[in-house]
Amino acid sequence: MSSSLRMMEMTWPEIEEAIHHNRILIFCVGTIEQHGPHLPLGVDEYLPMAIAERIANQVHGIVAPCMTYGYKSLLRSGGGPHFKGSIGIRGVTLIEVVKDIIEQFISQGWRRIVVLDWHLENVPFVYEGIDEAVKSEGQVDGLKILRIDNPNGLGVSSDPELEKFLFGTDFPGWAVEHAAIWETSAMMAAHPDLVHDSRIVDGQPPQPFDYDVFPVPEDAAPESGVFWKATLASREKGERILAAVTKGIVNVIRTEFPV
Amino acid sequence: MSSSLRMMEMTWPEIEEAIHHNRILIFCVGTIEQHGPHLPLGVDEYLPMAIAERIANQVHGIVAPCMTYGYKSLLRSGGGPHFKGSIGIRGVTLIEVVKDIIEQFISQGWRRIVVLDWHLENVPFVYEGIDEAVKSEGQVDGLKILRIDNPNGLGVSSDPELEKFLFGTDFPGWAVEHAAIWETSAMMAAHPDLVHDSRIVDGQPPQPFDYDVFPVPEDAAPESGVFWKATLASREKGERILAAVTKGIVNVIRTEFPV
Amino acid sequence: MSSSLRMMEMTWPEIEEAIHHNRILIFCVGTIEQHGPHLPLGVDEYLPMAIAERIANQVHGIVAPCMTYGYKSLLRSGGGPHFKGSIGIRGVTLIEVVKDIIEQFISQGWRRIVVLDWHLENVPFVYEGIDEAVKSEGQVDGLKILRIDNPNGLGVSSDPELEKFLFGTDFPGWAVEHAAIWETSAMMAAHPDLVHDSRIVDGQPPQPFDYDVFPVPEDAAPESGVFWKATLASREKGERILAAVTKGIVNVIRTEFPV
Amino acid sequence: MSSSLRMMEMTWPEIEEAIHHNRILIFCVGTIEQHGPHLPLGVDEYLPMAIAERIANQVHGIVAPCMTYGYKSLLRSGGGPHFKGSIGIRGVTLIEVVKDIIEQFISQGWRRIVVLDWHLENVPFVYEGIDEAVKSEGQVDGLKILRIDNPNGLGVSSDPELEKFLFGTDFPGWAVEHAAIWETSAMMAAHPDLVHDSRIVDGQPPQPFDYDVFPVPEDAAPESGVFWKATLASREKGERILAAVTKGIVNVIRTEFPV
Amino acid sequence: MSSSLRMMEMTWPEIEEAIHHNRILIFCVGTIEQHGPHLPLGVDEYLPMAIAERIANQVHGIVAPCMTYGYKSLLRSGGGPHFKGSIGIRGVTLIEVVKDIIEQFISQGWRRIVVLDWHLENVPFVYEGIDEAVKSEGQVDGLKILRIDNPNGLGVSSDPELEKFLFGTDFPGWAVEHAAIWETSAMMAAHPDLVHDSRIVDGQPPQPFDYDVFPVPEDAAPESGVFWKATLASREKGERILAAVTKGIVNVIRTEFPV
Amino acid sequence: MSSSLRMMEMTWPEIEEAIHHNRILIFCVGTIEQHGPHLPLGVDEYLPMAIAERIANQVHGIVAPCMTYGYKSLLRSGGGPHFKGSIGIRGVTLIEVVKDIIEQFISQGWRRIVVLDWHLENVPFVYEGIDEAVKSEGQVDGLKILRIDNPNGLGVSSDPELEKFLFGTDFPGWAVEHAAIWETSAMMAAHPDLVHDSRIVDGQPPQPFDYDVFPVPEDAAPESGVFWKATLASREKGERILAAVTKGIVNVIRTEFPV
Repeated sequence: MSSSLRMMEMTWPEIEEAIHHNRILIFCVGTIEQHGPHLPLGVDEYLPMAIAERIANQVHGIVAPCMTYGYKSLLRSGGGPHFKGSIGIRGVTLIEVVKDIIEQFISQGWRRIVVLDWHLENVPFVYEGIDEAVKSEGQVDGLKILRIDNPNGLGVSSDPELEKFLFGTDFPGWAVEHAAIWETSAMMAAHPDLVHDSRIVDGQPPQPFDYDVFPVPEDAAPESGVFWKATLASREKGERILAAVTKGIVNVIRTEFPV
Repeated sequence: MSSSLRMMEMTWPEIEEAIHHNRILIFCVGTIEQHGPHLPLGVDEYLPMAIAERIANQVHGIVAPCMTYGYKSLLRSGGGPHFKGSIGIRGVTLIEVVKDIIEQFISQGWRRIVVLDWHLENVPFVYEGIDEAVKSEGQVDGLKILRIDNPNGLGVSSDPELEKFLFGTDFPGWAVEHAAIWETSAMMAAHPDLVHDSRIVDGQPPQPFDYDVFPVPEDAAPESGVFWKATLASREKGERILAAVTKGIVNVIRTEFPV
Repeated sequence: MSSSLRMMEMTWPEIEEAIHHNRILIFCVGTIEQHGPHLPLGVDEYLPMAIAERIANQVHGIVAPCMTYGYKSLLRSGGGPHFKGSIGIRGVTLIEVVKDIIEQFISQGWRRIVVLDWHLENVPFVYEGIDEAVKSEGQVDGLKILRIDNPNGLGVSSDPELEKFLFGTDFPGWAVEHAAIWETSAMMAAHPDLVHDSRIVDGQPPQPFDYDVFPVPEDAAPESGVFWKATLASREKGERILAAVTKGIVNVIRTEFPV
Repeated sequence: MSSSLRMMEMTWPEIEEAIHHNRILIFCVGTIEQHGPHLPLGVDEYLPMAIAERIANQVHGIVAPCMTYGYKSLLRSGGGPHFKGSIGIRGVTLIEVVKDIIEQFISQGWRRIVVLDWHLENVPFVYEGIDEAVKSEGQVDGLKILRIDNPNGLGVSSDPELEKFLFGTDFPGWAVEHAAIWETSAMMAAHPDLVHDSRIVDGQPPQPFDYDVFPVPEDAAPESGVFWKATLASREKGERILAAVTKGIVNVIRTEFPV
Repeated sequence: MSSSLRMMEMTWPEIEEAIHHNRILIFCVGTIEQHGPHLPLGVDEYLPMAIAERIANQVHGIVAPCMTYGYKSLLRSGGGPHFKGSIGIRGVTLIEVVKDIIEQFISQGWRRIVVLDWHLENVPFVYEGIDEAVKSEGQVDGLKILRIDNPNGLGVSSDPELEKFLFGTDFPGWAVEHAAIWETSAMMAAHPDLVHDSRIVDGQPPQPFDYDVFPVPEDAAPESGVFWKATLASREKGERILAAVTKGIVNVIRTEFPV
Repeated sequence: MSSSLRMMEMTWPEIEEAIHHNRILIFCVGTIEQHGPHLPLGVDEYLPMAIAERIANQVHGIVAPCMTYGYKSLLRSGGGPHFKGSIGIRGVTLIEVVKDIIEQFISQGWRRIVVLDWHLENVPFVYEGIDEAVKSEGQVDGLKILRIDNPNGLGVSSDPELEKFLFGTDFPGWAVEHAAIWETSAMMAAHPDLVHDSRIVDGQPPQPFDYDVFPVPEDAAPESGVFWKATLASREKGERILAAVTKGIVNVIRTEFPV
């Protein structure tokens, strides 16, 4: 029927057929969060959806609509909620949303589900939502759900040469990767029209780093919202990132969902 | 700065500036729901977002990301959740999501907000979410939120000639407008590439109509998911619908948010 | 045993016997809401309970106690919560109350349940409560629940002659029927002692009508709380309303619960 | 205006005036619970409402509608939920209902509120609901709420002569007073038409008594649902009970709400 | 393997073996609450845990970690939350905590569970938590849970001679036993090092006593937090209390969980 | 007054005085979780409490009771909930517990609070609980809360020489530190009597490592529950760990809460 792999663009008979053929469903959870002066607020939806579509093409999967609103931005990992445009829902709410959606997927008949959980702050709440849905649905034959939030671990960190190409030799670690080399490069590859090249700046991660302070000290965040050297980004790096991550996830899918 | 009106595509400094200038924020709540064999599942996001962007262009507003997942499809108004691809979250969850998001909008400084609530089943839960957010935020100077779910009332029903042009003389009423003349026409105007012309069929509304039965009798829904005469749709009708609705809402906005 | 049909007045052995004989249980959900200067706050319990008892007499059913507290009054349909005496609970709370009660009915053995949901604002929350109860109880042999909130559709709207007799020829539609012809007439028939004839006034529906504004503009409601021409009410109209509605619902019950 | 003291029967202008005059509001929370073969399921609403109306007459108060559905019946104090007709809502739900209602009373302007909490099992949940409402409303000038659940302590236990008249000399204590002397007598006085004299039996309290067992052992409850000697009840005892309890509560009200 | 009976001190293989042998699990719920100037805030954990360990020794049971945080202190029974150091969680939260823990016990394989619920204010919330857990787990072969909150009823109140030895002849009843004879004596026996003998004072129960007032009148509580004659406490009384209560509970356990 | 620094052991007048002097309050959140065949289930309470007491001694702080029950064990970080004895509460429940407790601390007057959040799985839920409590309490003069979950970052990771002494040169990273060198050594120093030296084994981290699978594959966990080389543990290493971590946290406290 349709050649689209996006659930949003498909009709109900097409979905019925996809479920009948036990196709793989890919569901992304993102957020709306500041990514410096040069990247749009939607990075955490644009990137997982770009990767999800590449994956879907390779494994003949279906891409569900992204859950656009995620958990709040944190000082240490995303700059914090005081940045205008960073919009988050509460942890309890995110758990319930994910639980409801996963339960619906299961009750509609999907049995092979991949959850791409991009925004680091989402991880535990998405985990809990899936876990509660799986428990509430009880024993379901053939059901397997993968939750992936560390695509670098699957495709980048495991390739030292690539890591060196991307970050050079003075990379202080993944904790500083917000609106910096990785994300800026990947956006240059996936959505070049949404990157403001002329506004790219380097930044520094927030302080303090090893503990949290409440009320959250807004001045501890980097003023620009960039945590590291965004100026080292390039479209070529982005292409290699997307290719590596896609390949890593596809490998996992092929292992966990053998034909 | 940016010429985009979509929050997703904007950067945080652009949003900061938009809030500073007290621009109008438009937030749509949709759903993923069957719309017959000829329309995609995403109709309830595609149409409000298309209208939101037309409105934003006229009132220099900002369009927030759509809340894609909404309340479950009901037999009487959307065919029911047994249609594959109709994915809904529980009423309680939708209330909490809307409450969290509206609270965040308010706490970030937005003061003029328009909520476009497309999916009929969402209405009371979105209302409650806004109402609870407004209460929990307390007195906020200059805050006004509009919730609109009946764009026809604003731009179509009030124009008998247009209504006759669209529906002819045997229109049984808005309750049958699901995946039928209105929605098919509007999609032909807004996203012609997503309409499968060759699959358009006419249908009939579900029975029973004046009460609900639990467990929901799936065979009471129209087999195709179309509630009325989709074959009467046309792109011209769609253009007039979008124009009329946009004009109606813009009039309301200009009245409620005078310059 | 007892000749009462009211659960409140019955003893537990009588209920045990009623369940054993698979009798029909009728459960009303009302609210406490302003109904103008001439009608009591309890209209939304008095009327459904009066009709429930008439139905019970005809189908040998049992009338459960009314859930007196319902969802909050809204500007468009009931004047809004600023009217003194209009007391509402939150949507989430109403969902939970209905869910708990329906689950209890089911677990005690009731299999044929009719929910009369009078207050328009209650509808989606009562629906959700029933739907969640039915899901949580799982497969229950013989269980069927009817939810009715539009008695006019069943007995009045379907009879044009009656509708003309009741409302005349300039009736703007059901949206204005609050504390007006229908409710005043029905109360004159069911509880004439609770109608203050000398205080009956005509009113007008609230503005704005096609969208909601938050914070709710109290001055948009009609000052009297009456939405239309209450002076056109009469006891005769009330008797015909009650008879027509009772007949309509009894017909539905006999169709859905055949002997 | 109206001479009724029941909120249900009053109009909104009458309530507005009552609030303006700072009249006392009496709100009962009951339940639907088995009370043996001779008393109706509604005892826990009939009795507090009868007392509330007597109190209202003496202190010129207003009686709000009873919250009919309360916490579930327990083996030790009411026989347990396996008795047909005993319908309870969950503790969490009752807390939320009471919280919502009390918040509404406060926000509408009531400042002197008496909560009559009849069903023993309700007590902690009603307490919590009031406590949370008071906290969420913050500092409110002139607000005072009384919660009374032990009318005997106020009017019966404090009068040894009366207690002996009612119960004789072998009374094992209040824990056995369910559907027994006190409640049967009081119903004989308040609603003689709802007492089935010919079905009155004596019973015994459930075993075990000093601890709970889960799953609840249904056979530990008295078969009849009567916990003690209902045959010792009389209308005269009932009149004295109602008088004593009313007097006790009125005394408390006059002390706490001095003119 | 280990000779410890405390779950906290045991290893997972030891617990696996204990479950395999169907040993009895004892779970205490306490609180942090003022107990006068002479007793520590932890009395409601120290005492049930001391008794639990004595019981465990006699029935070869396992003692789970105490849930230290319980429901808030109330004026009538514990002085109220205005005493510094009295820390309580909300009723809803306590229900959920107990539900989660009991569900986990059941799903891990425990089938004979004793819940010692010390703090009087906890009782209904702990009951509800257990009840909901039992319901949500469904039919579980061999599962039985005992909930005990009135150890005096099992071992002290039933022994008039002991009661006279402990309290003398002018004891006004258990309602005044807070930080007084019983608790002070028991702490002298169980944790003499945590009792400040030189600070023991006598006190009086709070007023009012037969109803609650909101906002809670802090000055109605006894200034010291002691409700009765703590000076009458002695270590000998404490030893007899602990022995009697332990014996009473062990008897119940042997009856309910026969070998 | 008392020389104890443990809130459990203190009296309410002592706490009142501590609050008056604005002393620092240390609150640990732990869990009950398998730690191999050689360590007790309570490691995640024993260790933070041992460190909290050392800190309290140095900064004259007070140690609140530990919240013993935490979030469920996860396959990747603790082996998963199928290990007998690993007991966890749901994420939503943990958020509510922490929120309630922190709100109480604040409302009782504590202004300098340190939350030691030991169990890795707890982190986001404890963060959310604190964040919601701080929001709900509004502006509170002088309030500052520190949340610390990475004591290694403060005292061990920052000292390469110590890290090499502890782990040697083939340490694969903190992700494998469960029931291994760090925890075994620290327990040898803090509670040598609770370590079963003869049962110490080496283990390996669970697979898969870079994504989660649902339902959780129990056989992916190490059979022993040990993630790395526990045999390399020693009491000397434990003493150095405790000293370094204590020093690191004390430094943070002195910086954030200057005298």
